Amino acid sequence: MGENVGARSRAWVAAGLPMITLLTDFGLEDAYVGVVKGVIARIAPQALVVDICHRVPPQDVRRGGIIWASAIPYFPPGTIHVAVVDPGVGTSRKILAVEGRGSVFLVPDNGIIGHVLRKSEIRRAVAVRREDHFLRPVSATFHGRDIFAPVAAHLALGLHIDALGPRCRPSRWDEIPRPRRRWARRGNRRLIEERGEIVYVDSFGNAMTNLRPAEGRDLIVLEAGGTVFREISRAYCDVAPGSPLVLVGSTGHVEIAVREGRASSALRLGVGDRVLAVWG
Amino acid sequence: MGENVGARSRAWVAAGLPMITLLTDFGLEDAYVGVVKGVIARIAPQALVVDICHRVPPQDVRRGGIIWASAIPYFPPGTIHVAVVDPGVGTSRKILAVEGRGSVFLVPDNGIIGHVLRKSEIRRAVAVRREDHFLRPVSATFHGRDIFAPVAAHLALGLHIDALGPRCRPSRWDEIPRPRRRWARRGNRRLIEERGEIVYVDSFGNAMTNLRPAEGRDLIVLEAGGTVFREISRAYCDVAPGSPLVLVGSTGHVEIAVREGRASSALRLGVGDRVLAVWG
Amino acid sequence: MGENVGARSRAWVAAGLPMITLLTDFGLEDAYVGVVKGVIARIAPQALVVDICHRVPPQDVRRGGIIWASAIPYFPPGTIHVAVVDPGVGTSRKILAVEGRGSVFLVPDNGIIGHVLRKSEIRRAVAVRREDHFLRPVSATFHGRDIFAPVAAHLALGLHIDALGPRCRPSRWDEIPRPRRRWARRGNRRLIEERGEIVYVDSFGNAMTNLRPAEGRDLIVLEAGGTVFREISRAYCDVAPGSPLVLVGSTGHVEIAVREGRASSALRLGVGDRVLAVWG
Repeated sequence: MGENVGARSRAWVAAGLPMITLLTDFGLEDAYVGVVKGVIARIAPQALVVDICHRVPPQDVRRGGIIWASAIPYFPPGTIHVAVVDPGVGTSRKILAVEGRGSVFLVPDNGIIGHVLRKSEIRRAVAVRREDHFLRPVSATFHGRDIFAPVAAHLALGLHIDALGPRCRPSRWDEIPRPRRRWARRGNRRLIEERGEIVYVDSFGNAMTNLRPAEGRDLIVLEAGGTVFREISRAYCDVAPGSPLVLVGSTGHVEIAVREGRASSALRLGVGDRVLAVWG
Repeated sequence: MGENVGARSRAWVAAGLPMITLLTDFGLEDAYVGVVKGVIARIAPQALVVDICHRVPPQDVRRGGIIWASAIPYFPPGTIHVAVVDPGVGTSRKILAVEGRGSVFLVPDNGIIGHVLRKSEIRRAVAVRREDHFLRPVSATFHGRDIFAPVAAHLALGLHIDALGPRCRPSRWDEIPRPRRRWARRGNRRLIEERGEIVYVDSFGNAMTNLRPAEGRDLIVLEAGGTVFREISRAYCDVAPGSPLVLVGSTGHVEIAVREGRASSALRLGVGDRVLAVWG
Repeated sequence: MGENVGARSRAWVAAGLPMITLLTDFGLEDAYVGVVKGVIARIAPQALVVDICHRVPPQDVRRGGIIWASAIPYFPPGTIHVAVVDPGVGTSRKILAVEGRGSVFLVPDNGIIGHVLRKSEIRRAVAVRREDHFLRPVSATFHGRDIFAPVAAHLALGLHIDALGPRCRPSRWDEIPRPRRRWARRGNRRLIEERGEIVYVDSFGNAMTNLRPAEGRDLIVLEAGGTVFREISRAYCDVAPGSPLVLVGSTGHVEIAVREGRASSALRLGVGDRVLAVWG
């Protein structure tokens, strides 16, 4: 992003206006999200709370992580990012506060942190144990309200993560599976052959793969669900309405779409389906 | 909640940053919620507006009230809580402003206030009649925009509720039905037998009952929809994935759930279904 | 709106608290809306961002425009209104910043502006071309993130729209189709006969037409989908639960509803269906 952006966001952090983002699988039918915001507002009313998404499918850590990863880079450093997709609530799974990339991430220790940080980017991580900052009594079913919300609010007020508990490393690490890549030869050309998969289908039916365009190379062929593509389009409008296309989506991954349609249903594509690409 | 929380929220109210919460059945498909926020922002731009839930099923006062009750305790005193689930819009039903528990509640006089206050907790209640603070002309179909929003905004600016109209009592009073409780005897033990019902099914399919755990006693048996439970679990993870369990939910009521599943469909449970519990 | 409202909103704009509203077809299942808010917060953290609606059906400019038009009048002058319903993203379609009614509208040049401004109300319009305020690189698929969000944020910081690019007029202009109106005669009465249509069905199933009540006249008859109405009701409660009625909806248009029911399904009404009205 431009220099002006960075300067402003630094000014903003300096001005002491903390931001908290929320990613959950709570849905919007109940009061769960509102409750979390109430707890935050009680403790840190000056914090700006921004919703990333609350419609992660229940307990789908992988999908939650991919949604999260697409948003995090656009928030200013100093933000407190909270992710509550937490199938292990009430078990002995830890809650982690992780510092990295200039921000703090508050997560269940279920691997979701792997979607937003590389291991080498972790500057500091602690197990959230000090109960002073929890609501009491802590329920066994709603840690979003009882632990994540008040701890995030106290972090927004300036609490250092070392005050939350002892140093600790994430014990699980989820991430988008990497495509398998190998060199192939056709005549005297050296080609790259990649076997990847569809990792995310968005609400428009666009199918995101785990492939990224191979630098300095062109797509020779991509095959997914029986459909074959021979080039990467620049935008949806490069093809006729209703036609399928391959393009580089907004997160930088190769995406399969249908202009003004839903690739997932038109081409019968779903998460986990294999994708083969050849770059030359 | 901890003392630190209370201290901060008092500071916050003292700092003159009013908060308005919204509960409606407007849904998120149209602009209705946005319009309400526009009206508030025009009058009280410094107010922090927090959504509790906008997906209350149309005109379902009971469900709206239960959702509302689960969230209200987590907001700071001084908050203005607005609930627009209002099947009587355009009739002669009154709109009430009710002071209690240190906050103000703005509601149609349809009983929903009964979910968040006991009668003895009402410190002051008025019928909202003074039209100075309404948008004009007042439509017959959208009082959320024309009355609730501007009145809430003026309350956030410091208007006293007595300026809104004459003193008045709620004429209707909805609340969660109480379970019937009786003493039973098995051998030489005195047991408590309760006949309750399911009052809420959340978006995860968890079925909340109107029962609360009997203090100092253990569950002997609970039966709902033909399924029999013999103990209260502490958390979802106390049973195997896919198994049903009974636990104390985050609002303190007894809840029937299925780990990583939907109790409502797996056990065929719905609102109004009878639940029998014996505590010993 | 009352004088007090205008005074406050002027004070608010004077206080330098800019407001940005968002209307999109991004849905709430992914992180798209959250990303837009992150970009805005990075640049203009002090801006108040208000959601009008994010569940416009994908690429439905007409429906998006009608939703937008119902909300815009309720926001204070000085607001920056952003609409991203943009089937042409990635094509050479322009993005426009339009000044009118004291506010700024940031839109794709696909006609949606026609729903919120009359042509004569446009004070100034420019093609958004200067890339200094864009995120870079600009993707071909997510201009909401890369162009609309940062430009809106810079406008909120006080940037003049002339700094965005050259003067320019909208090339397309969508609006609600006008009913056809003709004079008829019955005995010695001169009647107005209007042929209109249903232009919007809201999430409650209420069917909004493009008709407005004829000033100083009464409804003689209205027919839609085979159902005949002989009067305009004032409010839903003027008829029995389950009964159909015609009333003037909250946007001032004639609306067909069913009390405590869904007119769209009960009367089989949908967008585009013809409506005949006679006023006398």
